[in-house]
Amino acid sequence: MFPELKNDRFLRALLKQPVDATPVWMMRQAGRYLPEYRATRANAGDFLSLCKNDDFACEVTLQPLERYELDAAILFSDILTIPDAMGLGLYFEVGEGPKFKKVIRTEADVDSLPVASVNDLDYVMKAVTTIRNALSGRVPLIGFSGSPWTLATYMVEGGSSKDFRHIKGMMYKSPDVLHQLLHKLALSVTDYLNGQIKAGAQAVQIFDTWGGVLSGPMYQQFSLLYMKQILGGLIREHEGRKIPVILFTKNGGQWLENIAATGADALGLDWTTDIAEARARVGDKVALQGNLDPCVLYADEQVIRDQVELVLEGYGRGSGHVFNLGHGIHQFVDPEKPKYLIDAVHQLSMKYHHDDMDY
Amino acid sequence: MFPELKNDRFLRALLKQPVDATPVWMMRQAGRYLPEYRATRANAGDFLSLCKNDDFACEVTLQPLERYELDAAILFSDILTIPDAMGLGLYFEVGEGPKFKKVIRTEADVDSLPVASVNDLDYVMKAVTTIRNALSGRVPLIGFSGSPWTLATYMVEGGSSKDFRHIKGMMYKSPDVLHQLLHKLALSVTDYLNGQIKAGAQAVQIFDTWGGVLSGPMYQQFSLLYMKQILGGLIREHEGRKIPVILFTKNGGQWLENIAATGADALGLDWTTDIAEARARVGDKVALQGNLDPCVLYADEQVIRDQVELVLEGYGRGSGHVFNLGHGIHQFVDPEKPKYLIDAVHQLSMKYHHDDMDY
Repeated sequence: MFPELKNDRFLRALLKQPVDATPVWMMRQAGRYLPEYRATRANAGDFLSLCKNDDFACEVTLQPLERYELDAAILFSDILTIPDAMGLGLYFEVGEGPKFKKVIRTEADVDSLPVASVNDLDYVMKAVTTIRNALSGRVPLIGFSGSPWTLATYMVEGGSSKDFRHIKGMMYKSPDVLHQLLHKLALSVTDYLNGQIKAGAQAVQIFDTWGGVLSGPMYQQFSLLYMKQILGGLIREHEGRKIPVILFTKNGGQWLENIAATGADALGLDWTTDIAEARARVGDKVALQGNLDPCVLYADEQVIRDQVELVLEGYGRGSGHVFNLGHGIHQFVDPEKPKYLIDAVHQLSMKYHHDDMDY
Repeated sequence: MFPELKNDRFLRALLKQPVDATPVWMMRQAGRYLPEYRATRANAGDFLSLCKNDDFACEVTLQPLERYELDAAILFSDILTIPDAMGLGLYFEVGEGPKFKKVIRTEADVDSLPVASVNDLDYVMKAVTTIRNALSGRVPLIGFSGSPWTLATYMVEGGSSKDFRHIKGMMYKSPDVLHQLLHKLALSVTDYLNGQIKAGAQAVQIFDTWGGVLSGPMYQQFSLLYMKQILGGLIREHEGRKIPVILFTKNGGQWLENIAATGADALGLDWTTDIAEARARVGDKVALQGNLDPCVLYADEQVIRDQVELVLEGYGRGSGHVFNLGHGIHQFVDPEKPKYLIDAVHQLSMKYHHDDMDY
């Protein structure tokens, strides 16, 4: 039994229930732009040690909540924990991003790959429970995973990529091999997210960071299909409450109708998509999360407020909007700046909810 | 006086005049995937010396035409010749992409920046005329430039970027400074493209490689507006023939209506946009160029033919389509592969033009 939830704006907005103000959180809100994060990370040694120790993971998850009036916390972890648990040997080189000791390129590589066992990801579940307890019901806790396609890009390329030539080569040359890999990943992600839900996550987000590098038909076959399979296998109600699911395909603005048709509760939007148009297209089916350009946080307070107002105005009246950046907050942002954003969301959004608060 | 043009499919398709088969060329068709290109480049010394010597530039421009039945040639040059001519000192570090010795970050930097003089770009005009003569009318020659926004990203960031934080910081903090920079670039690009047209270019393309990292409103204000200004200043008829203008904003699929409204003759599409939908949206106003995923060239002949057919079928009957990749051909592609693509375009497209050939 966890402490009772005091601020449920975020969960209510995801389910389009009335709220007093638009809830807000920021992707990568626990991160390098915060000096206290850098201090904890230095104590932990390196990034993976930070992720794998639940006390450290809990500490950094809560840090932004001490500074800002955020309406949700998100588990601090890495999207590549699943391939690491599959035995690929995740490591980080300074300034180079994530790498794997073993890469997946052939049918034999895929055949010998196990579905990730939740036992090997127990440290994540432990972190979820530790954080949920430490939150004491202040705000809900979001669990997350990378999408199968996005995880596969790192596994096949061996790290980050600009051209995705190995995985796309596989996609066009040996689609069955890639489907087999994505199938194993979909099973792994389903178990992983259900584990997080049982451990205490009150909503989950699937990050499809690289779905947008595909053509429409390939996106549907190689990314969206597997996110839909995951959705079909997720625990959608727990502790007597719905568990909302957010799908976020970066650069997926052309496919919102398809993403909304999966049965997800909410869609993440990056800043290239107009939120007013997005609501007109899919707002009857899903809530929307987003979508301020993270670079707005390089500007001064007034510009930040003006840009926040534009997004709020774009979404318009009523519930169903979770304010967020269109992608993660940058490491070079002055930590004073997010305060302007978050306070502006709460202050400026009240007028859009005024008549809805008769519940 | 240049030799008479023998194959005008490309120019006709851009103007939506009937053709016997869909014309095809490939962005970066003269490039590192060709062993003969690598040989010429080794002779030239480095990349900039290759661009600045009109004999070498002509040699590599013609190389892909010796191998494939291409319907257009494109000037071999770099998109950053303009900032180089403005005095920023372009150089290339191995494996690092383009860099500038001087970067533009402040109002004073922008104020002291000259509009590029066509005199400093005379080597480009010389290359255009040399190539046009060497082509002997085989196919038309395309001139090109980067868009003001795209050029500005390199000038402000100092090279390639992942987050565009300096230029976007400028955009949100000091929009007037950025507008001043973009204005100087628009004047420079207009002169530069008009110089290429006078030197022999028979069509021009503006590459807006990074317009797609902006939000819709910012794209309109900081990228599209300046491309429209350029369009207004271009020579649109020369040597008794129209000079078609192609605008290509990578990841601009959400804004096709706005791009088509500039008065461009054709829009470049990357592979994330469905060409059938694009034609339905803007096909009454503009021709379309694209949009096969360059990674299809890692597959075998049959897959290449099938994927070519899907694009042709997507565009459908009649003229107004120039087949291309959705972005530049990759350096790791087997030079046998483009042959399958190009031959497939010509063979498979004839049925879509069958009844139009009464001219």
